[in-house]
Amino acid sequence: MELVSSKSVVDATHVAQFKNIIGEQYVFADEESLNHYAHDETENLHYLPEIVLKPRTAEQISAIMKICNRDRIPVTPRGAGTGLSGGALPQLGGVLISTERMNEIIEIDEKNLQVITEPGVITEVLQDTVKEKGLFYPPDPASRGSCFIGGNISENSGGPKAVKYGVVKDYVLNLEIVLPTGEIIWTGANVLKNSTGYNLTQLIVGSEGTLAIVTKIVLKLIPFPKYDLLMLVPFTSLEKASEAVSAIFRAGYTPSVLELIEIDALKVTSRFIENSVIPITDDIAAHLIIEVDGNHMDTLMQEMEAISELLNAYDAKEIFFADDAQQKAELWKLRKRVAEAVKIAGYAIEEDAVVPRAELPALIKAVKDLGKQYEFESVCYGHAGDGNLHIRIKKDGLANSQDDPQMKEGLRKLFTLIHSLKGTISGEHGIGLVQKDFMDIVFDDVHLNLMRQIKKVFDPNNILNAGKIFDN
Amino acid sequence: MELVSSKSVVDATHVAQFKNIIGEQYVFADEESLNHYAHDETENLHYLPEIVLKPRTAEQISAIMKICNRDRIPVTPRGAGTGLSGGALPQLGGVLISTERMNEIIEIDEKNLQVITEPGVITEVLQDTVKEKGLFYPPDPASRGSCFIGGNISENSGGPKAVKYGVVKDYVLNLEIVLPTGEIIWTGANVLKNSTGYNLTQLIVGSEGTLAIVTKIVLKLIPFPKYDLLMLVPFTSLEKASEAVSAIFRAGYTPSVLELIEIDALKVTSRFIENSVIPITDDIAAHLIIEVDGNHMDTLMQEMEAISELLNAYDAKEIFFADDAQQKAELWKLRKRVAEAVKIAGYAIEEDAVVPRAELPALIKAVKDLGKQYEFESVCYGHAGDGNLHIRIKKDGLANSQDDPQMKEGLRKLFTLIHSLKGTISGEHGIGLVQKDFMDIVFDDVHLNLMRQIKKVFDPNNILNAGKIFDN
Repeated sequence: MELVSSKSVVDATHVAQFKNIIGEQYVFADEESLNHYAHDETENLHYLPEIVLKPRTAEQISAIMKICNRDRIPVTPRGAGTGLSGGALPQLGGVLISTERMNEIIEIDEKNLQVITEPGVITEVLQDTVKEKGLFYPPDPASRGSCFIGGNISENSGGPKAVKYGVVKDYVLNLEIVLPTGEIIWTGANVLKNSTGYNLTQLIVGSEGTLAIVTKIVLKLIPFPKYDLLMLVPFTSLEKASEAVSAIFRAGYTPSVLELIEIDALKVTSRFIENSVIPITDDIAAHLIIEVDGNHMDTLMQEMEAISELLNAYDAKEIFFADDAQQKAELWKLRKRVAEAVKIAGYAIEEDAVVPRAELPALIKAVKDLGKQYEFESVCYGHAGDGNLHIRIKKDGLANSQDDPQMKEGLRKLFTLIHSLKGTISGEHGIGLVQKDFMDIVFDDVHLNLMRQIKKVFDPNNILNAGKIFDN
Repeated sequence: MELVSSKSVVDATHVAQFKNIIGEQYVFADEESLNHYAHDETENLHYLPEIVLKPRTAEQISAIMKICNRDRIPVTPRGAGTGLSGGALPQLGGVLISTERMNEIIEIDEKNLQVITEPGVITEVLQDTVKEKGLFYPPDPASRGSCFIGGNISENSGGPKAVKYGVVKDYVLNLEIVLPTGEIIWTGANVLKNSTGYNLTQLIVGSEGTLAIVTKIVLKLIPFPKYDLLMLVPFTSLEKASEAVSAIFRAGYTPSVLELIEIDALKVTSRFIENSVIPITDDIAAHLIIEVDGNHMDTLMQEMEAISELLNAYDAKEIFFADDAQQKAELWKLRKRVAEAVKIAGYAIEEDAVVPRAELPALIKAVKDLGKQYEFESVCYGHAGDGNLHIRIKKDGLANSQDDPQMKEGLRKLFTLIHSLKGTISGEHGIGLVQKDFMDIVFDDVHLNLMRQIKKVFDPNNILNAGKIFDN
């Protein structure tokens, strides 16, 4: 499939039609707006759309898509723009559709433990709203205070709680979508089990806005656990810390959080946030943040104690137990600011590797070895319980990995190793623009062609978020 | 797409080639063998294949598929033949591929809590084998003592434990598949989180052997819970029993089993199995079977007590607690034999409806009302906690629903109501042959065409299990 041209394709007639569909005040072509929507949180990349549209309904998106499909206008769907792989970047120009006005929680179905929501709702707002009813929507990316639930669907997001509760795909029951050709369909039914035809719901989840635009979302909820306990465990060696991770699961425990933070990441973050809880001394190489949750405090205490004892075998230092809500909040604040802090500190390139969790030590060793060979610095942190490690890289002031052949060579070696460990390139950030050159490492041509043909089934004219995930 | 001809298409050259690929002793064309593979457990349907092949490896299947694809020979893949929707029936003749010799559990990865298995392993064997290592693979269809794990993948099976632990799709991490065109690929990676391209793994799960033949399976395992408690609760009204189901979840409990059995189903089953545990008296209309499980007996006792108290508001009669392993086993034996017993008793037509669980009372009322209107008898039982109800129907000695217009009309009305309740046709049995005429009730043409085109991407010549799920 040819990529749609990136030359100007939106003319005055189109603009008039768009204004007619969604209202003049929701069509933007001024420089400031275009600049705002030219970037997301990905490695300082910047591409201007020709026009920004802010529709309110699926029907409006349908009408827009019919025009764009007819006239082969590239369309980039966008949530809150917090993505880390460039999925919302309009690198071909054309129309950018923001879902920010589609921000209503339509119904909390307490009888069936479900919520029906529009895509432009901020994830944390959704979580807080259902929590008021005693309900829990667990997936919580670090950006949950600003990201949209629709973007989470597109990237199949995870977050710290995924280790016990699963990722976005485990909560999506049904989706209303607008196809690139303009039709509106529901992908499934509002049920917990479904063996009725191909699972289009799961095909859309994680498809990064390349197959359809999600306009309504039905999510499964669970009862909110009554209690949680949080502890911070310092280790003298990064390797031992990562070995301890799989030991916890092998012993039969399933923590609700199991995060790893390398000490250099914490050092950087401490510059930006007051830190009274986490010890940062020269003999410490990494910390694990471990949470258990449930409805019975006594069993949680037992679990926490058993895990603590188990960690002695991995040279854990003195464990810090967060005693109250304030200490917990402080610890979480620090954890959630790591990504932003290391980026400001010049670790501009972000990887999102995932391996079977017992392979974490091998992954971390490879990162450090490649750092020596290719002369980059790295800090590792993230969702160790899932084997999902965020690797932030700093090299020669590079703003991104796109145009540096040596950096790309180093990354190819890293991903090749990850593939041999039965892991893959992205655990929760997606492929988007910045990882697509590495897809051939984990998928052969047969596999990639299946994906390309599926893309063509949904989007015969290749207008929707074209050039993301793979070239087609 | 035209259906491949059902006239004889396997000639002597093909037979010689197949013998060459898998060995003469694994190629069967005798009448007894063909008859054996002409049916599964679906409504007395019977279609002869031309030839039965029992390959041992993915490479052998690949070689077979290349020949069949070249010469447009219909291929029907088959697990243990325990399916209830006709997915394994060779209604077009041609080649039947049985996976029964691919029956090795390749590796139990205790470090990563995963198992890698071939598709021909009996589900219960797999469960028992990983249990020896303290690990748990929860999906447990009633046929688990005879069905294959590969068939479970194809149908996205569930079972009683799904209510707490999820269905097959929630445990499948990665699949080795042979495409209809003969290529062998892995669909994903052996990881718990994955945002790397389209989710082909989930597209294959539940695709009923129409997109590819699964040859290796990587499953997530969890620690086996230490304790469980089981109780049986009689109700004087079927409606009250079904209302109680959603009340349990709304109160914040997640039982590991929550099954409903209508009294008529039990009466029939009791004819075949000695029953000393379940009261069957005239004032009882239905029972709930409720199990809780976990690692702390004291909290389980508390949960069971709280659930018991809650059920008083729904006119529950005296609750029976299964005291020991023997009583539990007897209760489960009775439950697992219901399907077989009601079939023998003439309830030949089986439906597998699923609705949001709070809609169960509406579903049951509709079944009984339609029974009066269309003169059929019905018994309901199944996975009420998931909103998934098996409805067995007896009408005028009908052996199946295929050729009775009046029965079909009644079923169309039932499914139309289910769709309006946001439910769907099949929760765990699949569509196969017997439900495909109803697909238009839950999917419009746009949706069905997406499925058909996806089928064509994988199977351009429409040779693999063609005519299942939908006509194409």
